[in-house]
Amino acid sequence: MDADLINTLETAFHPKAIAVVGASEDPLSFGYHYVRHLLDYGYPGHIYPVNPSKESILGLRTYPNLSSVPEIIDYVICCLPASKVPNLLAECPAKGVKVVHLVAGRLSETGRHEAKDLEARILQVARRLNIRLIGPNCMGIYYPRGGIAHSYNLTKEAGTIGAVCQSGGTSALLVRYGELRGLRFSKVISYGNALDLDESDFLCYLAHDDETKIIAAYFEGIKDGKKFLKVLGDVARTKPVLAIKGGRGTAGFKAVASHTAAIAGSDIIWKAAFKKAGVISAKDLSELVDLLVAFSFLPPIRGNSVGLVSAGGGLSVMSADVCEEAGLTLPPLPREIKEELRRKAPEIWDWVGNPVDCSIMGGVAMGFAEILKEIPRMLVKSPHFDFIIAEFTDDNPFSEEVWSSIAKGQTEAFINLSREELMPLIAVVSSGITGSDRLSHQRWKLLAEQRARLVDAHIPTYSTVAEAAKAVRQFIDYWQARADA
Amino acid sequence: MDADLINTLETAFHPKAIAVVGASEDPLSFGYHYVRHLLDYGYPGHIYPVNPSKESILGLRTYPNLSSVPEIIDYVICCLPASKVPNLLAECPAKGVKVVHLVAGRLSETGRHEAKDLEARILQVARRLNIRLIGPNCMGIYYPRGGIAHSYNLTKEAGTIGAVCQSGGTSALLVRYGELRGLRFSKVISYGNALDLDESDFLCYLAHDDETKIIAAYFEGIKDGKKFLKVLGDVARTKPVLAIKGGRGTAGFKAVASHTAAIAGSDIIWKAAFKKAGVISAKDLSELVDLLVAFSFLPPIRGNSVGLVSAGGGLSVMSADVCEEAGLTLPPLPREIKEELRRKAPEIWDWVGNPVDCSIMGGVAMGFAEILKEIPRMLVKSPHFDFIIAEFTDDNPFSEEVWSSIAKGQTEAFINLSREELMPLIAVVSSGITGSDRLSHQRWKLLAEQRARLVDAHIPTYSTVAEAAKAVRQFIDYWQARADA
Repeated sequence: MDADLINTLETAFHPKAIAVVGASEDPLSFGYHYVRHLLDYGYPGHIYPVNPSKESILGLRTYPNLSSVPEIIDYVICCLPASKVPNLLAECPAKGVKVVHLVAGRLSETGRHEAKDLEARILQVARRLNIRLIGPNCMGIYYPRGGIAHSYNLTKEAGTIGAVCQSGGTSALLVRYGELRGLRFSKVISYGNALDLDESDFLCYLAHDDETKIIAAYFEGIKDGKKFLKVLGDVARTKPVLAIKGGRGTAGFKAVASHTAAIAGSDIIWKAAFKKAGVISAKDLSELVDLLVAFSFLPPIRGNSVGLVSAGGGLSVMSADVCEEAGLTLPPLPREIKEELRRKAPEIWDWVGNPVDCSIMGGVAMGFAEILKEIPRMLVKSPHFDFIIAEFTDDNPFSEEVWSSIAKGQTEAFINLSREELMPLIAVVSSGITGSDRLSHQRWKLLAEQRARLVDAHIPTYSTVAEAAKAVRQFIDYWQARADA
Repeated sequence: MDADLINTLETAFHPKAIAVVGASEDPLSFGYHYVRHLLDYGYPGHIYPVNPSKESILGLRTYPNLSSVPEIIDYVICCLPASKVPNLLAECPAKGVKVVHLVAGRLSETGRHEAKDLEARILQVARRLNIRLIGPNCMGIYYPRGGIAHSYNLTKEAGTIGAVCQSGGTSALLVRYGELRGLRFSKVISYGNALDLDESDFLCYLAHDDETKIIAAYFEGIKDGKKFLKVLGDVARTKPVLAIKGGRGTAGFKAVASHTAAIAGSDIIWKAAFKKAGVISAKDLSELVDLLVAFSFLPPIRGNSVGLVSAGGGLSVMSADVCEEAGLTLPPLPREIKEELRRKAPEIWDWVGNPVDCSIMGGVAMGFAEILKEIPRMLVKSPHFDFIIAEFTDDNPFSEEVWSSIAKGQTEAFINLSREELMPLIAVVSSGITGSDRLSHQRWKLLAEQRARLVDAHIPTYSTVAEAAKAVRQFIDYWQARADA
């Protein structure tokens, strides 16, 4: 572990003071956004906007240049156009600046010669002055514990997922969509063109970071293949690494070059590298979030046997199919559960199987609302299952006024059961949601409320059984591989 | 075409009067639901609840038995327990009943001998009396034009999708989730155990039905394989047939038997049958709805070349990857579009490609809000593309107050463009929605509003580019196969 590197990045995440150079009052400009983010997210240190033609920006006293800031500045967010960066860097050593985040793009990713030359010159100057760079062409850092963020509407709640994203927009979407699924992040770094500090450096840092338990990544290319392969293997041995490799096809390859000037490289080599290092791969953000939900909320699972609770005949069938197609197995209901059902639901005990179709439970001895709560409890006691998937749907014949209380009772019972930690539980609540008007309808509101309750209880919750089965299967593979290693 | 069969089913969809036998005031019972549905959905004919111990149900005069109903009854919805069905059937000929829908389950699907015997007896009696049966163990008919429905919260608006679903709950979910995506249905039939009228009969009827342009299906098993294969081929030649085969795996096979007493059959044979007939296959309801959206709102597409409009660097890359992985191709931007960009956005014209990453358009000559509207318009004029996928996302650096008006303008411009019908347009609006509280946040509301606008404009709209690409690829395959045939 490179102690200098760790120190440098610790400075970026815990700066005593931050200067936003190129600060602005134009709400369409990054110079505005970054000052506002530091205020909005509650950065506790001094914020120094730098702009030669303003006295104050967003209520903060503004300085004409970095040199005039009356304090040591360890971290600079630079929103200047790239052409002005070399001059800014020249001011940095005298102010004690260790790390500069370069927002500006339109550099080597444009493919233009003069832009590439400028980028090379920026690196040269930084190296000479011993200043480390994040970027250019990047959004930088999101660190909710430290009140630092690079985008609007990122949750202020901190968690344990660290993320390394070559794309800044992708990192913001990851945090926003993740939030809805209960995910919270420790530190997120978007690094764009990786001119100086690169993906390997950030991975090392997150591997070393105590606040980070799981690492998510979006890579487009790599600066130093040998270093990367070594780091990736080392990091993935300490913490789960879940990654998207962007630029797998012909068009994506070109798009990567014009996005971050990266060379996407051969998809076959990337796949092999991920496999060798034990990195779990996702094809897009939806899959990455699905995987992060499993890794965040489930204890290790090493077997494939699922007890599947569904609420509808056709749904049970389709859900069993997609589970098996994802490589899960559905053992038959064991004798002891059959015996328990014989007492509590004699009308259906001999008929019901795994998947458990709860829609046939109408009129059973125990009562419909009660048996819906009881079924998952019966399954978690059985050694025949490694985990449970329960599908909460609105496939029922009842009017909304009748169904609402049954569904709520079922959801709360499932949440209570999860607190006993007898077996890993996974929930599926169908989405399919569209416009806001339609959402005001009671049926969709009920589903949304159920989903929110389950997510808030840290139960991994998916929109379809197919998505749940796929993510959980990769989760099991991860733990099986570690057991075999 | 069997004229008798058509007449029989015309009666079921256009009955002059309906008796609900086993009508009830208990809101947990089917006898209650079906009377309420006929009232709620506005069935225009006479409704006769039959129950020996009530004088009125839901405000309707109630009769002690079918024989006492003072009118010819062509269609009966029977909510009695199965054991009472033979006696009811005996009353039917005198009242002119042609078709009886049997709601009751717990028959052969339980695997119990006495239940199988009872089911066989019901068929025997019906055959002898020349009465046709829908079911048993099924939800029956949803026909919004005729005011007939089998479940709560199904839209009253009619459309052109006909559906044949062995599972009633699945048919309700199909209609509800479909509604949110803009789908509307002509006639939906759930047929459960298919004791008498079977999947082939219903397919024939929908093929013949002028109100039906597209056929969706959920099959668990078949009653008569030879008849089915012939019918499926004939039907799929007249209208697109999109189908889920439930019970593809070991657990699903068993679940099918306990759901509708069907024999799931070999997945390989089903796949071959679907392929030979030209039936498009889906693995679950989400996929089926995605396919129906393509078939409902797109004109035939026979080429794979997509112009991809995205709004974010990483998103563009990932979206290009999943398009290519689905078998689509992304040709480079042709010279004439480059030339147009040179005039309207000289800052980025040489750099931008396909996928078009709109996030690099900030500060272009034409203005950011304007170029976002213009890009799809440039693409639809090009002969190099067969269709357009445009990703509407919240991957942007702006505050919600700034972004809101830009996003709305972009959406409306896309809708206006779609009305010119220059090229098939597909929209992607990311979902990821959870609880209702969180939805009140402006960012999610904006996405929901965009989605609703696009859906209402009959633009095929998906949650992810991966889902869109997969569905559209199957749609293209369908039209290519027809062109080759």
